[in-house]
Amino acid sequence: MNPEEFRRHGHEVVDWIADYYKDIEKFPVLSRVKPGEVRSKLPPNAPEEGESFEAILRDVEEIILPGITHWQSPNFFGFFPCNASGPAILGELMSAGLGVQGMLWTTSPACTELETHVLDWLVDMLGLPAKFKSDGPGGGVIQDTASSATLCALLAARERATGFQTNELGCDGCLVAYASTEAHSSVEKAVRIAGIGRQKLRLIGTDDNLALRPAALLAQVRKDRKAGLVPAFVCATVGTTSSNALDPVAEIGRIAAGEGMWLHVDAAMSGTAAVCPEFRHIHDGLEFADSYCFNPHKWMFTNFDCDTFYVADRAALIRTLTILPEYLRNKATDSGAVIDYRDWHVQLGRRFRALKLWFVIRHFGVEGLRRRVREHVELAGQFARWVEDSVGFELAVQPPLNLVCFRHKAGDEFNRRLLERLNEGGKLYLSHTIVKGRYTLRLCVGQTNTEARHVEGAWREIEQTAASLEAGAS
Amino acid sequence: MNPEEFRRHGHEVVDWIADYYKDIEKFPVLSRVKPGEVRSKLPPNAPEEGESFEAILRDVEEIILPGITHWQSPNFFGFFPCNASGPAILGELMSAGLGVQGMLWTTSPACTELETHVLDWLVDMLGLPAKFKSDGPGGGVIQDTASSATLCALLAARERATGFQTNELGCDGCLVAYASTEAHSSVEKAVRIAGIGRQKLRLIGTDDNLALRPAALLAQVRKDRKAGLVPAFVCATVGTTSSNALDPVAEIGRIAAGEGMWLHVDAAMSGTAAVCPEFRHIHDGLEFADSYCFNPHKWMFTNFDCDTFYVADRAALIRTLTILPEYLRNKATDSGAVIDYRDWHVQLGRRFRALKLWFVIRHFGVEGLRRRVREHVELAGQFARWVEDSVGFELAVQPPLNLVCFRHKAGDEFNRRLLERLNEGGKLYLSHTIVKGRYTLRLCVGQTNTEARHVEGAWREIEQTAASLEAGAS
Repeated sequence: MNPEEFRRHGHEVVDWIADYYKDIEKFPVLSRVKPGEVRSKLPPNAPEEGESFEAILRDVEEIILPGITHWQSPNFFGFFPCNASGPAILGELMSAGLGVQGMLWTTSPACTELETHVLDWLVDMLGLPAKFKSDGPGGGVIQDTASSATLCALLAARERATGFQTNELGCDGCLVAYASTEAHSSVEKAVRIAGIGRQKLRLIGTDDNLALRPAALLAQVRKDRKAGLVPAFVCATVGTTSSNALDPVAEIGRIAAGEGMWLHVDAAMSGTAAVCPEFRHIHDGLEFADSYCFNPHKWMFTNFDCDTFYVADRAALIRTLTILPEYLRNKATDSGAVIDYRDWHVQLGRRFRALKLWFVIRHFGVEGLRRRVREHVELAGQFARWVEDSVGFELAVQPPLNLVCFRHKAGDEFNRRLLERLNEGGKLYLSHTIVKGRYTLRLCVGQTNTEARHVEGAWREIEQTAASLEAGAS
Repeated sequence: MNPEEFRRHGHEVVDWIADYYKDIEKFPVLSRVKPGEVRSKLPPNAPEEGESFEAILRDVEEIILPGITHWQSPNFFGFFPCNASGPAILGELMSAGLGVQGMLWTTSPACTELETHVLDWLVDMLGLPAKFKSDGPGGGVIQDTASSATLCALLAARERATGFQTNELGCDGCLVAYASTEAHSSVEKAVRIAGIGRQKLRLIGTDDNLALRPAALLAQVRKDRKAGLVPAFVCATVGTTSSNALDPVAEIGRIAAGEGMWLHVDAAMSGTAAVCPEFRHIHDGLEFADSYCFNPHKWMFTNFDCDTFYVADRAALIRTLTILPEYLRNKATDSGAVIDYRDWHVQLGRRFRALKLWFVIRHFGVEGLRRRVREHVELAGQFARWVEDSVGFELAVQPPLNLVCFRHKAGDEFNRRLLERLNEGGKLYLSHTIVKGRYTLRLCVGQTNTEARHVEGAWREIEQTAASLEAGAS
């Protein structure tokens, strides 16, 4: 495909996407295809000779599109959002066009320096502790997901706790990690991957708001120490996936500091809220953290994947993950004057992901981001009030920000059927969780283009569907 | 940015990229900026109010572009390529536009099914063992990089060797992993991450072609077993990063089978060659492999990141990496009729990467891919003959495929200066390695648009620069 053909087909794809966003509310949010249906329409073998771009685009329309669950629909209220926006899509396109691989500073200095710079910007934008900036011993890096960030944090904690000997000698069964029972599954996954073992992960109980109980943490740490174990890592969550609970970072941080544990703060979803001064309290105590992450690919309208991961002491992270084979040696690296991000994560190669984040921040402006976040929180609050004022529904917990956990009072089975009916209806998409043992619906207001009318429509649809289920049952 | 604004700015970005590819040979391949130069042009704070897209594009041109090392230049011969192509860029754009997150089948069935389907296509295209197809107990998944694939293979090996108890109990210091001294640094990184410890990684010596010596492997395995250790994992490389050496997979495979070790075959760079029947011998013995990976983002012209990772027994991989919190439960998953790729890698979330790979295979056609691969191998062979026929230069090893390792006979220091001078000149980019203790230049012919004239130009430039260095020295 020469540049002129690329220009022509590129315009076609851009037009296709523009039209997709114009029409996006017409599609059922949750794909209706059955298992195997997409594959059944694809030929069993790859074509021997090249095909026209028109044929490829036609198949996107006819085969792929029906198999899409529309995460970018403003009526997508499931999970946490995985947001795109115009500037992010175009940043991703620009990154794909440049096609650089930024494993070393020298393999594209702009890829490294823009990343460092934008991650420094974010420290100020969110009011994070200055120690996470690159001008001191700390710094930030873009990871693909918070799962990877948590793994890297745990690995650095493992090494720090063992004088950087586990990398050499392997795990010795002494280390213990802590998180709440509500922490993300990636904490357990990381503990398993790192060779620490699930049995050395202590899931600490939570309070009425589903936040980690510091006293229980401290008691467990002391018990483990008495048993000859080494408490090494604690993960505090700012906005749990299930119910958006906010762990008390400051209290956990004091315990971590007192016990010499690495504190990682996972704010994957909710971190973005700190762009608004009135929500910055979610990060109270972050000055105790050794590492922190949040996902611009959630609430900061930046295409997946984009997790920003910060460490207070980059030397510990780099020493944990560094490798330097001869074929990667170069003058800039040897000079020590540059960052080589290959040493900051699991992978060696890396895309130019800072571009899309830079595009988004510049396009929206900090104030523009604040406006959307505030609107989402306000809409979630409005929805929560409708739930509270209704006869049939109740809140499972008070929503701290933009996630509402609620349920119909008619019990688990009713709520299960309600969710199924709603999602099959196609007008909106919700997901569920278990809160305090009960089946609970989750409505997260966070999609880039969600406005009041979408949340109003969702509530109407939920009420009507519940009413029709009740009528059918009676 | 509404759909009409997106359309307009999207056309601008597409045009920018089309023009970039028209002009790409005019830029110095290796960026000439100094450390800190890119950052010095960026404002210290994010803008409060949104900026125009024109301002953003202008800064891409003026600030970012000078900081780019042009991986997509046909004169980029460094490392291994990290290729883009028109259809891949547009597949990436389409994926960004759809903005789906494919952690579960249900979160976009097309994302999962197209991936499974295209990875099955590749098994036939490359003549890989049928056991890697999804219709039996095996299957394939897209990982970001071969580093991640190697880590996942090692983790599954670790679990299989310990009855899936390491995930529970942590590492116990008994497991041993093997690879050649020439294996990729990601093997050591994975061994460290997985808690096995670097001291339990045996780097086995190589023969004259820098391929792993099976007899040495077997001797070390027996020695370790005698010492009470458990040999669990061996990585064979098809095309090492340093010199493209091909490990004897069949002989290693027989040892692995006899000793009950997991065999992972890392063909990150060279795997694509098997699209041509005449190069399929590189995979002789692959029927012994428990897992295999190669990178379409290298020689298959598909934008980074795209590593295809296959396992013979997907149950072992899934059991190693699975997590299932309540908020991810759904009917399709419970039915067991679908693949949920979240259980096949470290991350939870995932992009729709199959689209770009599908676009590439359909656009080029299998025969079109073969033509490029053959041309690259032929051009590398031609370059190697020029080296052999020259007075001043010699080959470090015979090139098996498309990577030529060569050096000037004047010694390490001369070659070091030669490389520096060449890369500073801007007309081409080469990287280096150490082969058998000697500083060696690497010329990899693999960029999507590299043709005979570029390789001819490179040789001319290398000869002339060497001559001028010799003249300066005399």
